[in-house]
Amino acid sequence: MEIKYLDKIKSPDDLKKIPADKLGILVDEIRDTLISAVSKNGGHLASNLGVVELTVAMHRVFNSPRDQFVFDVGHQAYTHKLLTGRYDRINTIRTEGGLSGFTRPEESEHDVFISGHSSTSVSAGLGLAQAKLLNNDDSYTLAVIGDGSFTGGMVYEALNNAGKTGNKLIVILNDNEMSISENVGAFANYLTLIRTNPRYFRLKEQTEKALNRIPVIGNELSNKIFKLKTDIKNTIYNRSTFFEDLGFRYMGPVDGHNIKQLCQALEGAKLINAPVVLHVSTKKGKGYNFAEKMPSEFHGIAKFDIETGEPISSGKSFSSVFGEALCKIAEKDDRICAVTAAMSLGTGLDEFSKRFPERFFDVGIAEQHALTFASGLAKNGKIPVFAVYSTFLQRGYDQLIHDIALQKLKVIIAVDRAGFVGEDGETHQGIFDVAFLNSIPGVKIYSPSCFEELEKDIFAAINEADGPVVIRYPRGTQTATQISPDISNENYCVYGDIGKSTKIVVTYGRITANAVKGALKHKNTSVIAMNVIKPICPEIFEITANAEKIYFLEEGIRSGGAGEGFALSLLERGFRGKFRLVSVEDEFVSQASVGSQLEKYGLDENSIFKMLSEE
Amino acid sequence: MEIKYLDKIKSPDDLKKIPADKLGILVDEIRDTLISAVSKNGGHLASNLGVVELTVAMHRVFNSPRDQFVFDVGHQAYTHKLLTGRYDRINTIRTEGGLSGFTRPEESEHDVFISGHSSTSVSAGLGLAQAKLLNNDDSYTLAVIGDGSFTGGMVYEALNNAGKTGNKLIVILNDNEMSISENVGAFANYLTLIRTNPRYFRLKEQTEKALNRIPVIGNELSNKIFKLKTDIKNTIYNRSTFFEDLGFRYMGPVDGHNIKQLCQALEGAKLINAPVVLHVSTKKGKGYNFAEKMPSEFHGIAKFDIETGEPISSGKSFSSVFGEALCKIAEKDDRICAVTAAMSLGTGLDEFSKRFPERFFDVGIAEQHALTFASGLAKNGKIPVFAVYSTFLQRGYDQLIHDIALQKLKVIIAVDRAGFVGEDGETHQGIFDVAFLNSIPGVKIYSPSCFEELEKDIFAAINEADGPVVIRYPRGTQTATQISPDISNENYCVYGDIGKSTKIVVTYGRITANAVKGALKHKNTSVIAMNVIKPICPEIFEITANAEKIYFLEEGIRSGGAGEGFALSLLERGFRGKFRLVSVEDEFVSQASVGSQLEKYGLDENSIFKMLSEE
Repeated sequence: MEIKYLDKIKSPDDLKKIPADKLGILVDEIRDTLISAVSKNGGHLASNLGVVELTVAMHRVFNSPRDQFVFDVGHQAYTHKLLTGRYDRINTIRTEGGLSGFTRPEESEHDVFISGHSSTSVSAGLGLAQAKLLNNDDSYTLAVIGDGSFTGGMVYEALNNAGKTGNKLIVILNDNEMSISENVGAFANYLTLIRTNPRYFRLKEQTEKALNRIPVIGNELSNKIFKLKTDIKNTIYNRSTFFEDLGFRYMGPVDGHNIKQLCQALEGAKLINAPVVLHVSTKKGKGYNFAEKMPSEFHGIAKFDIETGEPISSGKSFSSVFGEALCKIAEKDDRICAVTAAMSLGTGLDEFSKRFPERFFDVGIAEQHALTFASGLAKNGKIPVFAVYSTFLQRGYDQLIHDIALQKLKVIIAVDRAGFVGEDGETHQGIFDVAFLNSIPGVKIYSPSCFEELEKDIFAAINEADGPVVIRYPRGTQTATQISPDISNENYCVYGDIGKSTKIVVTYGRITANAVKGALKHKNTSVIAMNVIKPICPEIFEITANAEKIYFLEEGIRSGGAGEGFALSLLERGFRGKFRLVSVEDEFVSQASVGSQLEKYGLDENSIFKMLSEE
Repeated sequence: MEIKYLDKIKSPDDLKKIPADKLGILVDEIRDTLISAVSKNGGHLASNLGVVELTVAMHRVFNSPRDQFVFDVGHQAYTHKLLTGRYDRINTIRTEGGLSGFTRPEESEHDVFISGHSSTSVSAGLGLAQAKLLNNDDSYTLAVIGDGSFTGGMVYEALNNAGKTGNKLIVILNDNEMSISENVGAFANYLTLIRTNPRYFRLKEQTEKALNRIPVIGNELSNKIFKLKTDIKNTIYNRSTFFEDLGFRYMGPVDGHNIKQLCQALEGAKLINAPVVLHVSTKKGKGYNFAEKMPSEFHGIAKFDIETGEPISSGKSFSSVFGEALCKIAEKDDRICAVTAAMSLGTGLDEFSKRFPERFFDVGIAEQHALTFASGLAKNGKIPVFAVYSTFLQRGYDQLIHDIALQKLKVIIAVDRAGFVGEDGETHQGIFDVAFLNSIPGVKIYSPSCFEELEKDIFAAINEADGPVVIRYPRGTQTATQISPDISNENYCVYGDIGKSTKIVVTYGRITANAVKGALKHKNTSVIAMNVIKPICPEIFEITANAEKIYFLEEGIRSGGAGEGFALSLLERGFRGKFRLVSVEDEFVSQASVGSQLEKYGLDENSIFKMLSEE
């Protein structure tokens, strides 16, 4: 499609100049641009297609960056990027050096807050609004949050505190009836109730008509109308909505694909002297057939063919191997339960959810609850397996310590997306899990290097463990070592003749293949790949004791990682050789392909080969 | 008072045998016993005095341990301990080897779940109930949770998921209008609304009368009555309560000090074919004058005089020094804001809250929100200082990474109760903060050893930092070193003649005094006390490079701590001496006095002296 309007928009001011009757064309241009960009680079599509009109309306009614928009999560901000001077770079999205797939303050003054994790926007918005209140700044703060994010408890902590912030906070509830998977729980049902309750709608329409009758919406008049509305509601419904019980004024639901209605509602929200929840109904995937029909599949997606909606590459992954192995065990052992925090597709649990629905629990984006719920299951005899991305498990650190490890409960944590995640960038890197899990007493940690080891580890965890176990594995597929180990047991493998080696590479997980391929081209060099990284098998210290130099390679943060603990043990044992730890120093890892990230940190085959050549 | 009934109760069965008209005497005996025990050992008093009748009623109506009770948090379970065979050991509570001040499964089959941290009970209860459902076990699961715990978001994650668990979960909302401080936020207001809404009460009384008319409460009849009640409510109030919006049946409020009413309500709750919230109104501190008047002061308290209510010891503490210093800075700098998660008294922020109410934010027991809210404040130009106990900061690990460190925001985290906490035991030890904070890129960590250093660190953090800063300090008062350092700068102090030393002790924080006193009795030994533990000042590696042996002493977990990182740096720099790290290995630290805990881990003066003698 020929672009007529979108390419002229260098800032929200340009958007405001477009005549209202041309916005329909603009919206189509935006959708086309989004579908094209995401089909090439992968990314979040369905959520972005759902908020095109909403984002246009927000930038028409408010003045960013003075009025501040916080997106929860930032992966629904692609339209916002297009409208704030980033159209010409949209094809760089999620590539090395290109636009982020999330909001990023370094990228634009219109991106107020980083938000790659869910359910943070109301807290952030409250902080922003509160600071403005103290600064006598009367601009608005908007938090745009999906109904899925409302399954995260942090939102309620924030809502509970909104009373103090005065009247300049507007929470836009983007209700698409989905989190990442289909949305779950009582709150989702509650939203359905609001959407479908005819009495409620009648009231809404009255209010809308009243608002529409006023040509220029004046402050005083509208406040009166709002007061009338709430008076009616208080009389008939006795503070009937959940949000009003939490101290917010509630407006909605508004058709999220009707720009005129959206603008009116936003203007109305401005006039209310209290924190507002504006409930907007949208359709996830709106305007792209395949995404509308399969919003989960098109939530976060790899490159795909626009004509067919088919992903360009796929195949066996650590996630799918995990999912299949778990089904196999669950067939024979009815104690096995699977828990996910809105990630049944991403973590490979889809098949499990279909075959064992009574033992499958999607708890919403609620990692804290997932862990403590799992510990309750374990206490009464079940074997819960919680599959979760490394980066999201950060939310459950306290529950891991307090509800699982301290009670020595047999909960299996399957940590997906451990290590570099590629294009999702800083917010999603799985580089902290080894560090924070290492600190928790009594947790056993597996870090398999290939599918076969992953399968074995799952069986071992379920059949042999008597306390908490973590199995961590990367995003995507395995890299084959193409060489058989010389020694192989549950705890570690050795590649090469360790007795003759002066240089030893110690590593674990996905980068094992790179280490083996890079190191074994050298003479007198061998590789130890740990499968169990906590506790580290003491034999490894014995067979490395006389090495001239040990290189420890780690796809994760240095502080608290396995390499640091390894170094301490060597030092306490009087190791006299040289030691070098290659890992991520005290920094965040920015977006790029996984290959590029490995190279940057010296963890690809070539870097490893070179490092061993030089020293 | 003479004990006539309580000492005969060896199990809940014995309680059930006591005639209903004698329960008033029993309840008095329990209160007397609680006040006496806590006055001697310290502990949680006000919350326990509030739930005496409720706990008696629960054990009359239900059959523990088959019916499972989860207390949120376990510090309100003292009466439960008295009624489940632990009366004769109540005076050992919170002492080494004695009863825990929280629920502890190892202690009794009636203690189902560990719970030292807030807002976990509904998640745990759901897991327990769900497992029973799968096991075809028709017993009940009760979660007893205070209104304060409802300020923690995890509760909403759990409530949102309760629909699946069937009809055997009963959530008892113990509404005492307090969290630890006075309860905050919209939810508290909402509860007040329920309590004081006369229309609501009318309805409640009708239902109660209806229930009372039935001599033996039959299943079918009661269900009809409940249906009638909800029909009326749905008509008049349109699902008027928050809890019903979340899929629960709501009952209440019930007088929490009327055993008869409580028993009736609990019997009623049994009969409802859905998860139930039973709202119970209690008075925190009930029955002890001083505790009723000052429930915050008597929430968690040290030993006190029963006659006067005065604490037996007190004095200057790290918390009070922090609070005073912050007030001093806030006087001159109106960017300073203070944030607490329901801990204004414990963290020394009481004075600040009175002097700068518009810049003081008690967000409830909501550490996640507190951090992201603070990052919003920082983004818009404020300097937020979040004071929080080390153990509770575990809840905010993800927000520290994602909302603060990644955005390089200047948020000051004042970590109180860092290190051993003494009698609160396993659930509350501040032994993980160094490990998990070390892993977060760009965070500077101070660990002052004395009041003077703490004050300096606060000023430095506020005036000089340009990103996130942590200042961590222990519970209670300082131990004086009584020796002046030979070298002293912001990063570290050296005690003794480092140039002549063959043995060097490296340490930080409170145990500095023990190290100095224990080590300097030896010749050729000196002590380096780090004030900044991240990043570790490189000079320290230079001045220790030629030591024959380095002892690193750390009051915290080994993995990820400062000692491990220190060892790695030494090894990479080619250090050739011996090294020993004294810290907490892979285990939890059980309750005892702080002195005893330090001794157990070799961190008291005498152990340090001995260690240096032997080697």
